[in-house]
Amino acid sequence: MPLSPPRTTDVHDLQGQTEMTHREISPGLEEVLYQEFPVLDHGFVRVIDYMGNDNAIVQAARVSYGKGTKKKTEDRGLIHYLLRHSHTTPFEMCEIKFHIKLPFFIARQWIRHRTANVNEYSARYSILDKEFYIPSPEHLAVQSSINRQGRGDTLSPEYSRYVLDVLRGDAEQVYAHYEELLNEDGAGNILNPDKECLTRELARTNLSLNFYTQMYWKIDLHNLMHFLTLRADSHAQYEIRVYADVMLNLLERWVPFTYEAFLQYRKEGAHLSKNGMETVKKLLKGQRVIQEESGMSKREWQEFTEKLDLTS
Amino acid sequence: MPLSPPRTTDVHDLQGQTEMTHREISPGLEEVLYQEFPVLDHGFVRVIDYMGNDNAIVQAARVSYGKGTKKKTEDRGLIHYLLRHSHTTPFEMCEIKFHIKLPFFIARQWIRHRTANVNEYSARYSILDKEFYIPSPEHLAVQSSINRQGRGDTLSPEYSRYVLDVLRGDAEQVYAHYEELLNEDGAGNILNPDKECLTRELARTNLSLNFYTQMYWKIDLHNLMHFLTLRADSHAQYEIRVYADVMLNLLERWVPFTYEAFLQYRKEGAHLSKNGMETVKKLLKGQRVIQEESGMSKREWQEFTEKLDLTS
Amino acid sequence: MPLSPPRTTDVHDLQGQTEMTHREISPGLEEVLYQEFPVLDHGFVRVIDYMGNDNAIVQAARVSYGKGTKKKTEDRGLIHYLLRHSHTTPFEMCEIKFHIKLPFFIARQWIRHRTANVNEYSARYSILDKEFYIPSPEHLAVQSSINRQGRGDTLSPEYSRYVLDVLRGDAEQVYAHYEELLNEDGAGNILNPDKECLTRELARTNLSLNFYTQMYWKIDLHNLMHFLTLRADSHAQYEIRVYADVMLNLLERWVPFTYEAFLQYRKEGAHLSKNGMETVKKLLKGQRVIQEESGMSKREWQEFTEKLDLTS
Amino acid sequence: MPLSPPRTTDVHDLQGQTEMTHREISPGLEEVLYQEFPVLDHGFVRVIDYMGNDNAIVQAARVSYGKGTKKKTEDRGLIHYLLRHSHTTPFEMCEIKFHIKLPFFIARQWIRHRTANVNEYSARYSILDKEFYIPSPEHLAVQSSINRQGRGDTLSPEYSRYVLDVLRGDAEQVYAHYEELLNEDGAGNILNPDKECLTRELARTNLSLNFYTQMYWKIDLHNLMHFLTLRADSHAQYEIRVYADVMLNLLERWVPFTYEAFLQYRKEGAHLSKNGMETVKKLLKGQRVIQEESGMSKREWQEFTEKLDLTS
Repeated sequence: MPLSPPRTTDVHDLQGQTEMTHREISPGLEEVLYQEFPVLDHGFVRVIDYMGNDNAIVQAARVSYGKGTKKKTEDRGLIHYLLRHSHTTPFEMCEIKFHIKLPFFIARQWIRHRTANVNEYSARYSILDKEFYIPSPEHLAVQSSINRQGRGDTLSPEYSRYVLDVLRGDAEQVYAHYEELLNEDGAGNILNPDKECLTRELARTNLSLNFYTQMYWKIDLHNLMHFLTLRADSHAQYEIRVYADVMLNLLERWVPFTYEAFLQYRKEGAHLSKNGMETVKKLLKGQRVIQEESGMSKREWQEFTEKLDLTS
Repeated sequence: MPLSPPRTTDVHDLQGQTEMTHREISPGLEEVLYQEFPVLDHGFVRVIDYMGNDNAIVQAARVSYGKGTKKKTEDRGLIHYLLRHSHTTPFEMCEIKFHIKLPFFIARQWIRHRTANVNEYSARYSILDKEFYIPSPEHLAVQSSINRQGRGDTLSPEYSRYVLDVLRGDAEQVYAHYEELLNEDGAGNILNPDKECLTRELARTNLSLNFYTQMYWKIDLHNLMHFLTLRADSHAQYEIRVYADVMLNLLERWVPFTYEAFLQYRKEGAHLSKNGMETVKKLLKGQRVIQEESGMSKREWQEFTEKLDLTS
Repeated sequence: MPLSPPRTTDVHDLQGQTEMTHREISPGLEEVLYQEFPVLDHGFVRVIDYMGNDNAIVQAARVSYGKGTKKKTEDRGLIHYLLRHSHTTPFEMCEIKFHIKLPFFIARQWIRHRTANVNEYSARYSILDKEFYIPSPEHLAVQSSINRQGRGDTLSPEYSRYVLDVLRGDAEQVYAHYEELLNEDGAGNILNPDKECLTRELARTNLSLNFYTQMYWKIDLHNLMHFLTLRADSHAQYEIRVYADVMLNLLERWVPFTYEAFLQYRKEGAHLSKNGMETVKKLLKGQRVIQEESGMSKREWQEFTEKLDLTS
Repeated sequence: MPLSPPRTTDVHDLQGQTEMTHREISPGLEEVLYQEFPVLDHGFVRVIDYMGNDNAIVQAARVSYGKGTKKKTEDRGLIHYLLRHSHTTPFEMCEIKFHIKLPFFIARQWIRHRTANVNEYSARYSILDKEFYIPSPEHLAVQSSINRQGRGDTLSPEYSRYVLDVLRGDAEQVYAHYEELLNEDGAGNILNPDKECLTRELARTNLSLNFYTQMYWKIDLHNLMHFLTLRADSHAQYEIRVYADVMLNLLERWVPFTYEAFLQYRKEGAHLSKNGMETVKKLLKGQRVIQEESGMSKREWQEFTEKLDLTS
């Protein structure tokens, strides 16, 4: 039972629509505009609108830095330079608007990124669909014993099956009660005309955090990169990382030079502390450094040696 | 089972603590610092820290407007003047930090106010307590037929009892399964050493939106007044309004002049549209105005006449 | 001597450029994209890019409120409803990017609106043009004796001439010294190869606040309306109001329904205090109210009677 | 001629004032509260108020992460851990309010940091003092030929003298004209009762960018550290760096553990790109890497080798 048949129709209408514009366009993103990219069991990400492209970043930088050349290679170099030196304001000149369908518990993490604009589906006003997130067995894991916020080994197949049955059973039950309390089904039909209907803003409190909601989410390119740095990271929860991964692909389509610079200077770079830099300098000069003399704690030293593939 | 016994101890320690400071203080707020004001069945609001008072607003305004007098009556007048003319920057110079315990579905509304700082309890990291919100029977209502986002009549006593049983039953069940999946109880004791423990970040997805979380929430006075304008309003959901009402009392203790001005120019004032103002002017001149000639739609006209106690 | 001939060329290129897009467009704004609208003696405003239109606001609102109808009249009604009830998040879903040339003293006021993105011309990096703001004689006025922040009567013609001579003379002199200290002219030519060149970041400190700078300025529609409410207001300084007036015209082209609602519910509406509302209600019931019994101060009473065309 | 004798009196009053509070205090900062630290020739920085200390960060983190220990050494470790892993929200829970006197051209850079609250002296409303910034001869430098935004060699003594005479002469002249146009001196005395007075909001446009203004500036600890990372950096203009340096000392007094962690993980750490990290790993394994094979541009390679003290 899709949440919004009329809107899906809208989408198809819009995909077919072509207009003339004097604005800059992003050819790569135009190709997939409005297209739903599936994530998890019922979620998706799609781009609804955007403003600017790599060229818009270059233009904005040149308001600040003066006149520049026109060659593509120099544009690429300027974008890399800007990101390498954290001159981030020109990246704020591009904007993108997503339509995202995601479970509540992920929406709660997502919304902590405050420099974005949001319109979320209102369950005070409308009825939520019967769609909830059930993990795949390979994503069911025990609590990690080393990273207190993460996952360790995968559960055994038998226990996985049990866990999924519990999750599914409870979700089915709370939704059935939700409809009963509303005295309406998800399509808005009264179930029993002789019964009272609990107000929606209270009935929804019976739903569990794995139910899906959806939102429009608009953000500038600088803040999107910050979001992706944190959420496409191995420490992020798997269920938000898969959204970030789809968005990385959309970033590449939208602003290819910026994407390349983003990987180079942000996502796949690393920050070293003062003690870390001093240790690297000593090692490069052939000196021996041990943890006790590095100024680093044991835990920090371990993080440091892992970052640099040092094993001894 | 309290969520955080060690923190409660902290609170008691802090309430007893007295230090000397050269800073401005708010005597009214000092009296209730750290004190938990109960809200709903398990929630609370308490002030953890604050910066500034009415005098700090006056000082900040005088950096902009120049030297001023010292009399208390003039301070009061200046604060009223600032708020009447929407000179809001001096109010941003005061800050307050709350500790709030509230159900998930309210936390989700709360967090939409983005110009605040937040630290929320992490259920990826820690285990949530068995505390969930069950409305009082007098707050159970049917969906409003006029305001599509609000509540209408109260449910019948029999149906109320049924609704509460459903809500309580489901909450008990999802929490029991939560503990079973974690293979831990809320106090962190392993239940069955021979069983696997599902990672916390997945187990929590089984909990429903009526469970309680808690957060530190810090905001400046200008944005706090904006929050209270929206959330202490009759259109806000009852369950967030009760938090806003407690915070109104704390506002009065903290900055009494500002509180008074806030009621006068914001909370209990009203905005009239261009057509509304023109209609009022005509009426005051003794002219007769009917909806069809007012430029207002029927719905707008009704809102207008209600605002002004016009009945005919 | 134009600040940036290469950029001007860019603009002409872009105006000629037409691309196909699947995005929503604003036909009214497309017609004037990149076009410079002159403001003051050397300034301008032009739109560089935009995202969204009236329809995008409706779409975003319907993510929250559910499925809706398709008729234009209902879209207009929904936009009016949203603004009347301060449901502002859907307006944040539209974005616009301006290129603005303006004097320093106006740029300093402008930038106080913090919820916008900015790239400003850097005088640490590049040389400013010899362009400074000299008021027209009709805008030279004495300090207002009633509004301590505003203007009173116009200066006499003779004194005006004297004032303009002083302003022009000083601006000419500080710019001549600026070039001399830089040992460069505005086009970047070394003036005297045997002399030293003071660094740009210090030489610029000799320029006066009436010199022109320029910036890219990007803002969402909600915050733009807030800016226009404050800066197209009669209390704003004339020299910023003229920019706001041009932007009002651009707003009308971009989102005509929103523009109409903005005039109705914001710009030409009025806020009445609690005491003001109570006084209006009494007056409408035929009661007599005098200032002393109104709860309003003398100044407030005067503002109130002016708002409502009440005389005596 | 001090800008605000009444306020100076306020300050002395406040320094003497001692109140009891139940809030957390910062002993180091209490000692210097309200005290003006001189910067440049007429500027200063002083702390007007603050909220929180190192302990408040630990408390906020423990709302998220759960119960913790009480030992000081563990608090220090937790603060280091938070900053090392960019868990920045607990640092947002502390706030500080400065009173800063600074030249216009520095205020313009400062205000670009948007996540702060500001009240600035209004020259529409009040008259600016005759105070302008004249650099010391040792800070007069030519434009750098390598860093297009910075300073190179110091000017010759003779030319320095000439430059300072020009700067001082123009500032004296524009201020004399400012007073003449206002027909008032800085103390608000009418100069010639038979003459007209140009409105303040226009007269000020004749002043140059080296004149001093002042503001209250309030910011949270996380954003303050971001400000200091950029403005206490060697690429920042000297005249803002000296303000940042004073604020670094105040940071150390306020939150000593955080200050230590800030130096270690931010200010004196370094970010390496993907190619940079790969190159370091190869070098540590004893491999030879040359620029051409490093994936880095010449300029980037030079930055890289300088960071790591590699010379060959």
